[in-house]
Amino acid sequence: MRAEILSIGTELLLGQIIDTNAAWLAERLAELGIGVYNRQTVGDNDERLADAIRLAKSRADLIICTGGLGPTGDDITSANIARVFDTPLEINQEAKVNLEKLFARRSYPFTEKQYKQAMLPVGSEMILNPTGTAPGFILDKDGVIIMAFPGPPLELYPMWRQTAEPYLRARGENVIHSITLRFCGIGESALESLLQDLMDKQSNPTIAPYAKTGECHIRLTACAASVDEAKKMIAPLQADVMARAGKYMYGVNDETLEVATGKILRQRGLTLAVAESCTGGALGGRITSVAGASEYFLGGVISYDNRIKEELLGVSAKLLQQHGAVSEECAKEMADGVRRTTGADIGISITGIAGPGGGTPEKPVGLVYIGISAPQFATTAVRGILGSDREMIRIRATTQALLILRDYLTGAGVII
Amino acid sequence: MRAEILSIGTELLLGQIIDTNAAWLAERLAELGIGVYNRQTVGDNDERLADAIRLAKSRADLIICTGGLGPTGDDITSANIARVFDTPLEINQEAKVNLEKLFARRSYPFTEKQYKQAMLPVGSEMILNPTGTAPGFILDKDGVIIMAFPGPPLELYPMWRQTAEPYLRARGENVIHSITLRFCGIGESALESLLQDLMDKQSNPTIAPYAKTGECHIRLTACAASVDEAKKMIAPLQADVMARAGKYMYGVNDETLEVATGKILRQRGLTLAVAESCTGGALGGRITSVAGASEYFLGGVISYDNRIKEELLGVSAKLLQQHGAVSEECAKEMADGVRRTTGADIGISITGIAGPGGGTPEKPVGLVYIGISAPQFATTAVRGILGSDREMIRIRATTQALLILRDYLTGAGVII
Repeated sequence: MRAEILSIGTELLLGQIIDTNAAWLAERLAELGIGVYNRQTVGDNDERLADAIRLAKSRADLIICTGGLGPTGDDITSANIARVFDTPLEINQEAKVNLEKLFARRSYPFTEKQYKQAMLPVGSEMILNPTGTAPGFILDKDGVIIMAFPGPPLELYPMWRQTAEPYLRARGENVIHSITLRFCGIGESALESLLQDLMDKQSNPTIAPYAKTGECHIRLTACAASVDEAKKMIAPLQADVMARAGKYMYGVNDETLEVATGKILRQRGLTLAVAESCTGGALGGRITSVAGASEYFLGGVISYDNRIKEELLGVSAKLLQQHGAVSEECAKEMADGVRRTTGADIGISITGIAGPGGGTPEKPVGLVYIGISAPQFATTAVRGILGSDREMIRIRATTQALLILRDYLTGAGVII
Repeated sequence: MRAEILSIGTELLLGQIIDTNAAWLAERLAELGIGVYNRQTVGDNDERLADAIRLAKSRADLIICTGGLGPTGDDITSANIARVFDTPLEINQEAKVNLEKLFARRSYPFTEKQYKQAMLPVGSEMILNPTGTAPGFILDKDGVIIMAFPGPPLELYPMWRQTAEPYLRARGENVIHSITLRFCGIGESALESLLQDLMDKQSNPTIAPYAKTGECHIRLTACAASVDEAKKMIAPLQADVMARAGKYMYGVNDETLEVATGKILRQRGLTLAVAESCTGGALGGRITSVAGASEYFLGGVISYDNRIKEELLGVSAKLLQQHGAVSEECAKEMADGVRRTTGADIGISITGIAGPGGGTPEKPVGLVYIGISAPQFATTAVRGILGSDREMIRIRATTQALLILRDYLTGAGVII
């Protein structure tokens, strides 16, 4: 199956947003064993959009469109798909009812224009949008399957998972099975070096690296007559990868670092609290992105201001004066303090200089200390220089904190 | 001038990397007043690459290629440009000398294969690569200008700035200037209804809406002989938009909700603290994403567990028993409590059911209460149903909290 991705929206051509959907979809299609041969990006212009759809239709078996499904005049995807595939648009009753329900639940005013989103090409199958207003659709006509999704990633992702993925999986002759191994604490090129000969001789199963913010993934994919057979083909390759780089692997497939650590905490019946300075709550935010985090996460203190470090975490004024808030000593007292204050089994702290201001030659922007306090464990704080960009430093600080927690929980010692 | 961007590399079609170059280039071209009408992405395949170049050549005056200029067998951009533009490749002496110098300076082994990078289409102008090995080039032939750059952003950026930008500027007639107005608390289609006649009659300046997660942007763009003139053309349209929808506007251009509220807090010399339950720290994380947030943000309490609501925020056990943690009463006590505990001028609280579990008919998943406590102000909590997806509910909850804070600060009352 030859696939083509069509990203629609003038904002993409103006560079106002980066097209992360196209890469995400390409990765999903690769998992299904479907090759993407072309990608096009067009603006909200009828003529050029129709041309792009026509071109894709002439060379692909599967076309995935994102964007342009909303209620406004700029949203012209459905109309142009209908035009090129020579089928009229009509109100989809299910989509209409869903829209009305959605607006009844929210408190936004409902305007007649909203119904435009329920106008789908005749012959298409509606894709329910569980997180937004615009439904998507799948149209199978003229020997080509075309799918249309809204542009916002948080709408696209669940719609893809719930509808398009099973739809495409059911059509595949061979089964494609993938496993993603998640690595942290090693750079992409260092990891690749460890696996170079495996990558050079790959065919089936394949092995592909993906660089992510603060981590790196390796995907192993096999194509076979059944999932079981594919798994059997992947197993020896996976064992080989693990033998070479296993100590950097923290999770498999969708198991993020916060999911992986949460799983261990739950299994062990341990509770966790955080004390955050430069990350301002982002670590807690990440931990609680996992459904069911309340089983092990109690909460914590955002001690952005030093007075809060003193009053809520019991960091001594003298320590702050002597060593400063960004210090090993402070990180340790913060971790101890939040454990004491909340009664959690484990306390994790972050204090650092996220910048852009506030750096000195001794304590530059990017300097971060991460503390961990736990029973029968000497409270420890680890120092790192985590980059120079504020956002990057803060993301990496939360990643490092989760890694340190994981190392403690798995008995690897605090090695980062 | 009609521009087209061509991103070349199989890694893009596999989703292994996100194409940030295309958005960066589109923004640079927009600054120069050059419209991008199409974008294509192709892999390292001769036939498909030549087709893509041919298509671009047939419809654009300016083609910008990135990727595929290196020394390996996968690097086929120059050869295919030469093929489509019907000109041979030959060693560019300047490029050859640069390569030899570069390798003499570094201690990399130099192989004959490296010379491939100095093979440029006859008639083209070499673009020096100050940070990498592969030079780029500009070819002006058959009425079309085609430029080729290496894929790594840190090579592309300086090459573009030093060569392509002055080259294009010297040819340019007009500049494009844009302003983005940021709205919250109104849906995209409702906002568009307010501006419909302006949008219907737009030509120059143009007016375009962009839906974002939890908010909506309107971009006004003018094309003129100078930036000043473009600004003058935008001013009356902007005034008209403000007269119609100004009460929903919170910021301009890069001014996010957290930046906008931070600015008011700083101006007024007020301090802020947060008490977060279902968002687990994400609101604090968002507030502290702004550099300089320490001037007004003290921190707060992540009271994920009810015991922390009681012990650190002083929410009474009786209240929790009677009304539950997700209640107007609890949100109010949390906001009061965090203000008392931290000594902040303003306390903001969030408590809700982010799901997927934990919902009941009376208190469904998505139910969120946001509380605000401030001097000479009756502590208030606002109820909302913010969707059904955990991540979406949590993002919207932080957005609503910032909006409520903004409404309080601007004296709009708590209207959400």
